[in-house]
Amino acid sequence: MDVLTENPPFIFDTLAVVGVGLIGSSVLRRARAGHGLAQRLIAVDSNPEVCQRVRALHIADDITTDVAEAAQKADCVMICVPVGKIGEIAAQALPVMRAGTVLTDVGSTKVSVIEAVRPFLHHYHIAQNIAYVPAHPMAGTEFSGPDAGLANLFENRWCLLTPLENTPSEAVNAIRLFWQRCGAHVREMTPEYHDRVCAIVSHLPHLLAFTICGTADDLAEETRSQVLDFAASGFRDFTRIAASDPIMWRDIFLANKKALLEMFDRFMASAEMMAKAIYEEDTAYIVDRIQRGREIRKRLIENQQA
Amino acid sequence: MDVLTENPPFIFDTLAVVGVGLIGSSVLRRARAGHGLAQRLIAVDSNPEVCQRVRALHIADDITTDVAEAAQKADCVMICVPVGKIGEIAAQALPVMRAGTVLTDVGSTKVSVIEAVRPFLHHYHIAQNIAYVPAHPMAGTEFSGPDAGLANLFENRWCLLTPLENTPSEAVNAIRLFWQRCGAHVREMTPEYHDRVCAIVSHLPHLLAFTICGTADDLAEETRSQVLDFAASGFRDFTRIAASDPIMWRDIFLANKKALLEMFDRFMASAEMMAKAIYEEDTAYIVDRIQRGREIRKRLIENQQA
Repeated sequence: MDVLTENPPFIFDTLAVVGVGLIGSSVLRRARAGHGLAQRLIAVDSNPEVCQRVRALHIADDITTDVAEAAQKADCVMICVPVGKIGEIAAQALPVMRAGTVLTDVGSTKVSVIEAVRPFLHHYHIAQNIAYVPAHPMAGTEFSGPDAGLANLFENRWCLLTPLENTPSEAVNAIRLFWQRCGAHVREMTPEYHDRVCAIVSHLPHLLAFTICGTADDLAEETRSQVLDFAASGFRDFTRIAASDPIMWRDIFLANKKALLEMFDRFMASAEMMAKAIYEEDTAYIVDRIQRGREIRKRLIENQQA
Repeated sequence: MDVLTENPPFIFDTLAVVGVGLIGSSVLRRARAGHGLAQRLIAVDSNPEVCQRVRALHIADDITTDVAEAAQKADCVMICVPVGKIGEIAAQALPVMRAGTVLTDVGSTKVSVIEAVRPFLHHYHIAQNIAYVPAHPMAGTEFSGPDAGLANLFENRWCLLTPLENTPSEAVNAIRLFWQRCGAHVREMTPEYHDRVCAIVSHLPHLLAFTICGTADDLAEETRSQVLDFAASGFRDFTRIAASDPIMWRDIFLANKKALLEMFDRFMASAEMMAKAIYEEDTAYIVDRIQRGREIRKRLIENQQA
């Protein structure tokens, strides 16, 4: 780790990316494109077919299915697997990681991921000075797998860091710089706050999108086919969201259960009020709710995130 | 009306488009671009500022705020105002329309629009042989007003016709040809069936999008600002939908109340089941629902509507 020199040629000597899906392969592509992220890249994936694709794509120097083999060579291990598996990977990596190295992850939820990693970290990081920097790059497409990655996926997107109380600031700085060099805007916050924000801006919209597709699917066969034929733009956007990876989203929903169900309850109460207003033809209420959506959109555009 | 000649140079001699918003101005632009839609174009809008924009845009031969003035000159009157106003416009147009002419509309709901038009039609269409062809071109963007129109807005989109039992087939054929020349795929169905399909593919998604934006807006001021800063792609798609015109959507929700609330109830029951599955960590159920979304997406792409 070379973060204290003024113009570090590379932030890390050897970066091990564990899990080469959309995010993992985007990180590898970015590092390959030469942004001073890491000199040497090791790709790790439990699926031999994914390893084969990574080899064909030439986005890593070394490719292995063995987490420990990669972790012992790396000065940064970045876990890019679905959130439900992050603890398990950390348990394999931490025992062999060298002193002064950095463990990080890209999970879409943070409280439960930190809880899953903490027990293993507690065993190793004090003795061996391994720093854990939980992170969440807020980027994605509806595609998944090593072929879906993009070197510019993180450009102008947010990356949220939720360091622990005792995470060394050098490690936080290294990971901040890493994501900045990926083109992202970085912000720090508590894991709890992170999970609430993500529940409303990302997890709940996905839950609703999956649900409405299921609702359409539950309709009679004939109607269902018409639903597809005549899909208007509203439904098209919903199905775009709903095309995301099932295992990843199952894990996110379970991992962020508390914040998600809280936002779900708020949403359902609002939805019931909207339905009641439609039933009672309360036009003032309906227009007010629609206007709020427009204002949020306007502010999104002003924030250049739209 | 010249639909029976083999190569009609124009379907209509004089087309009056009442309401020059996104759809109305797109129809005028298409007709202006020369697809044999109508020889002469009259734009009607109750808002003088809109009339001024239409004049500046050069998308009509005549511009007026007076429905009757335009209707008496036209062999086709196409009503492009929000669904709640269509009956009122029909009441102004029908008494002065000439025998053998066609009244049509582009409303997003059909049962209530037909109910609103029928009483006035009953007075005039038998004596004067005016044909009413309810239609719904399923196209749109999140923008509105005469500047938002696009000549190719209807290309490769569906246009649904819901003719009455006694609508003369010549008139239905003329309107079908009209929308085909706009680039749309045309299908006929009953008004009731139309309203159920549109409730699930378009109206319910919009209702949910407006609601989730309102839910976010209800959060504490601090959180709300973070919601906007960190808006992930899920929320961005929701707010894209939620940016649509409030009056148009208020009218659609009220006009399609019955079918919409039926689909809403189905959706809410599915959403509650999904939340219960997350609460109980019923992973099989969660994955099954997510998979259904993906399958619908796949079929949408196969249907080339995605």
